[in-house]
This record gives sequence, structure tokens and C-alpha cells, in this order.
Amino acid sequence: MSDKLEFLKVFPILAEEFLDIAREYKFPAASVEWIKKNIYHNVPGGKLNRGLSVVDTLKIIKNNQVSDEELFKAQVLGWCVEWLQAFFLVADDIMDQSITRRDNPCWYRMDGVGNIAINDSFILESAIYFFLKKHFRDEPYYINLIELFHEVTLQTEFGQLQDLLTAPEDHVDLNNFMALAMRMAGIEEELAYKHAKDILIVLGEYFQVQDDYLDCYGDPSFIGKIGTDIEDNKCSWLINQALDRASSEQRKLLDENYGKKNPESVAIVKKIYRDLELEALFKKYEQDSYSRINDLISQLDESLINREIFTTFMGKIYKRTK
Amino acid sequence: MSDKLEFLKVFPILAEEFLDIAREYKFPAASVEWIKKNIYHNVPGGKLNRGLSVVDTLKIIKNNQVSDEELFKAQVLGWCVEWLQAFFLVADDIMDQSITRRDNPCWYRMDGVGNIAINDSFILESAIYFFLKKHFRDEPYYINLIELFHEVTLQTEFGQLQDLLTAPEDHVDLNNFMALAMRMAGIEEELAYKHAKDILIVLGEYFQVQDDYLDCYGDPSFIGKIGTDIEDNKCSWLINQALDRASSEQRKLLDENYGKKNPESVAIVKKIYRDLELEALFKKYEQDSYSRINDLISQLDESLINREIFTTFMGKIYKRTK
Ligand SMILES: [Mg+2]
Ligand SMILES: [Mg+2]
Ligand SMILES: [Mg+2]
Ligand SMILES: [Mg+2]
Ligand SMILES: [Mg+2]
Ligand SMILES: [Mg+2]
Repeated sequence: MSDKLEFLKVFPILAEEFLDIAREYKFPAASVEWIKKNIYHNVPGGKLNRGLSVVDTLKIIKNNQVSDEELFKAQVLGWCVEWLQAFFLVADDIMDQSITRRDNPCWYRMDGVGNIAINDSFILESAIYFFLKKHFRDEPYYINLIELFHEVTLQTEFGQLQDLLTAPEDHVDLNNFMALAMRMAGIEEELAYKHAKDILIVLGEYFQVQDDYLDCYGDPSFIGKIGTDIEDNKCSWLINQALDRASSEQRKLLDENYGKKNPESVAIVKKIYRDLELEALFKKYEQDSYSRINDLISQLDESLINREIFTTFMGKIYKRTK
Repeated sequence: MSDKLEFLKVFPILAEEFLDIAREYKFPAASVEWIKKNIYHNVPGGKLNRGLSVVDTLKIIKNNQVSDEELFKAQVLGWCVEWLQAFFLVADDIMDQSITRRDNPCWYRMDGVGNIAINDSFILESAIYFFLKKHFRDEPYYINLIELFHEVTLQTEFGQLQDLLTAPEDHVDLNNFMALAMRMAGIEEELAYKHAKDILIVLGEYFQVQDDYLDCYGDPSFIGKIGTDIEDNKCSWLINQALDRASSEQRKLLDENYGKKNPESVAIVKKIYRDLELEALFKKYEQDSYSRINDLISQLDESLINREIFTTFMGKIYKRTK
């Protein structure tokens, strides 16, 4: 069975564990059903790259010598990352007033949900710490896992605030999920975590640019949403490149049409992107970024941390189409 | 200086500690300013009963033998409880579309805030774990504190969901803040925590009924808000008592007027409350509840936990006017 299918099989187990505590609170059946819908609508439908990377990372660090129990635990951690992601996406969609997410209506737009989605997002976050307690309480690295999730959470919230106060940007955070697997594998040198973080920051920058690129050039049937960065006046990599290169005439057209909701304006912006050959520019950026990260990885001290962790992960995100 | 003034003096210290990490993220000054406004608008303006109770509890358990460092730490924990409260109130006000909170406009209604308040509430929550890490990381009970906050958080979210799905109720949770001080004092017997929880549940029920009572009969200049439970169709203790006692004629009037936004309807409901003498009924309930809790407290095993913790706390919340 593929890693992804194995990973997906763990989801209903966790969902039931969590629903069981709702049942223990003597919740009416309708409330338990609500939580179940919240969970199933919001958690499992993504690309699962982040979650799967926890499992991949552990396998690589341990040279594939992973027991069934360790595999399960890494999958639990991977799902915690996906629940965290879901927590943020549910709230982000309300704040951005988005329409669809992963090919479905956003949760807050579902019948009868509305602002209840705010509290539903909180519940998704709390589930993480319930899972950590249930599955990791006796591990020496339990507190490190909790602190990692707290840290990534605050970082993401600060990133969100930036997006919300300046131009909306939809900051993509890669999270430091690799550190979760490194903790599980018993790595204790803080320097190893620092190196991993340094590389993930550069990877994250590429991931962000790629996300902006796919919003305009990605196939909606692949990326699971219809890009609206142009309509939404987002501070995306593409518009920044265009503004750097635009003639004064193009600049005027961009000023007049960027951030307008009508299809004619969007078409004018896209035509300028085409005239400025931004697609080629992205390919060039992608190539440069790929080399730069390879350089960073080749400089890693392999006694501290296995290079393959990063090359495997790069193989997944570089040149992705969704 | 009074305990409350001492407690209030700690707030700006914590606010600065938290703002410092925002500054370290190289946030633009405007974003740091935003976070500061969020914090100052939402955290310190409440009754502070919950936060102060952590300090009180520690003093009682330790027979007033509390060092300056211990006092400060208890104050930090007390503030963590207040930040948790603020996290929930900011979000609750959006979900309930409330107008004022603690005599001020709700945060989401402040100029330019709107749904950004969702992410702002997240940031208030995250601050808790930043403070715990900063001030308690080296304590043997650090993990217990974190787990207590996680537990209360999930419980409150489940309570909220209940309110949101059925009749809106504005569930008041007393939180298990006493347990924070008990951890600080080094109490390890789980039975002590169980007894404390049992009593707090009964106290919490009283607190909830009292909250519903004050919404209608409290002086707005004391309670810091104009009660709107009648207009908002809330499933409050008062309406439940009224429905239990109403004649068929009164019942008809309640059905027609409860949950309507116009002042005439509210006046009709209040008249029925008066005719049914609900104020006297509340005083009777208050008296009964007071005796019941005193009985519970007198049964406590004092070798496990000091009774005075609860009697002091009761002195604060019974017969409060705000
Ligand atoms: Mg968005
Ligand atoms: Mg956004
Ligand atoms: Mg995007
Ligand atoms: Mg409310
Ligand atoms: Mg409410
Ligand atoms: Mg109330």
C-alpha cells in the first residue's frame, strides 16, 4: 500500500478517538455529529504533503528501520500537522471571505455554519494536544512536541496578522514538521534543529512563490481552487515582478485593473503577465532556487542530520503542479 | 497595596515580554502597535476574579508564606487565565454579534478590525504558552500547567459549541484555575484535584445562574454591559424558571415576545418576570446553593486540600453585583 493510503487509514482512527471524548462529555448526538462533519470536511482533503513528510523524515533518519508502533506514531504526528493546517484554513477562509477550498465550499459557507466555524476551528486546534497527550505522554520528547506546535502556531498567527494588515498575501508556512520526526528519532543536538530550520526557511520562500504562481497558472482541476489573487488584490510574487518590469503604460493598466472583480480587468492583468513573460521568469526563479537549496543541503554536516531528508522533500515540492 | 493593584502591575510587564517577541520577528512598528492594542483592549479590563483567585489560592495553601518570586509566578499564572478568558471573549463577541463588552465596544467592532479579530483572538491564546514557557520551563510541574490550559480550553470550546448549536447561552466556565496554584504549591495527589474539580463544578453552576440573573437585574454601570439575554433569545435561567411557572396566558405572551429586539417586547417579558417574582426565587436559589456548597466544603479531607481556598473564593462570588 502506498504511504499516502497507509496515512489516510489512520485518519478515521484519530477522528473516532476525538469523537469519543465528545461522547464522554455527554454531548447530544447532534453535537457529536457536528464535530464529525467539521473534522471530515476540513482535515483530510488536502495534499497531505506536510503530514506525509513527518513519516518520510522518520523513515529516512532511521534508514527505514521503523517499527509498526513508530510508524503509527509518526502518522499521528503527521495528522497533527494536518489538523493544525485545517485550524488555520477554516479561519483564514472566513477572514478572506473565500468561496471554495480544496474543490468544496469553505466550511463557514456550509448550510447553517457561518461564524460557528470560528469555534469549530478552535476545536480542530485543541484536538492536536489531545492526540499528543494520548499518544506521546510517556515519551521523553513529549514536551518538545508540544512546544514545537505552540511555536509554529504563534509564527503562523504573526504571519497571518502581517497578511491581514498589509496586502493580503496568504502566507504559506511550511511548518517545522521535520523537527517532529527528528524528536521522535531521538535527535537532541539543538544545532541539528537550527540547520533544519535554516533550510526550511529557504524552501518555504520557494513554496510561497510557487503558490502564487500556481494561483494564476495552475490548472484549477489540479490545485483544487480557482485562483483569485488578481481579483483579491493580493501582494503576490507575480504582481511584484510585473510592477518591477512594467512600462509606464503597463503600469497604468495594472493600477487600473489589479484588484478589480470583473473578468475584463483580470484578463488585462493576465495579458500583461504574458507580455512580460512571467511564466518563463518563474521557471528561471525555480531553477535558481533549486540550485541554491541544493548548495545549502550539500553543506550540511551529515553527522548531525541526514541530507536525504531534504532532498526527498524537495523532490515532492519542486515542479509540483498542485 | 491591594492584591488587585499588585496584580494589575504585572500586566504591562507581560505585555512587553510578548511584544518583544513580535519585535524580534522584525514586524513593522504598525503591526507591533496593533498587537499592543489588541492586548490592552481585551485582556486587562475584566473583573480579574479568576486571575486573582490563582494568587489567593496559592497564599492560602502556603499559609501566606509566599516568596516574592512565588507571588510573581502566581500572578503570571493568574494573567494566563485572564488571557485565556480574553481569547474566548473576543471570539464569542463575533459569534454572538455582540455590541459592547466591559463598557467598551467589542474588539471586532473597533475601527478597521472586523474579522481580523479572529486571528487576534488566536494570538491571545498563543501568548499563554509563551508565558508558561518563559516563566515555568524549569519547573517540574510545567507540563501539568500546559495540560491544564489545554484541558480547560477544549472544555470551553465544547461548551461554546453547545451554546451555538442549541439556544445561545453564553456558558460561563469557572476554569480550573485553582489547580494551577495547587500545582505551584507542589500538591501531587490526584485526589486533591478531583475534589477541587467537584466543588468547582457546583460553584460554576451557581456562577452561571448568577450571570443570567445579573444580565436582567444587575446595574449596567456595575456589570459593564447592557444585558440583552431577552432580546437575544438566550436560554437563560430566568426564562427557564418563567416557563416552568407561567400561566397559559403568560406562556403565550412569552412565546410572542421573548427573543424580539423591540423594547416593548422586552418590557412585557420583564413584567412577567416581576409578576412571577423571579428576583425572590433567585435569592432563594442563591441561599440554597450557598448551603449546598458549604456542605461540600465541610466534607473535604483537609489533609489533602485546604478548605479555606474555597470559602475565600465563595466570599468573592456569592452575592456579587457585577
Ligand atoms: Mg485565504
Ligand atoms: Mg488569508
Ligand atoms: Mg495563494
Ligand atoms: Mg456572548
Ligand atoms: Mg456566546
Ligand atoms: Mg450571560
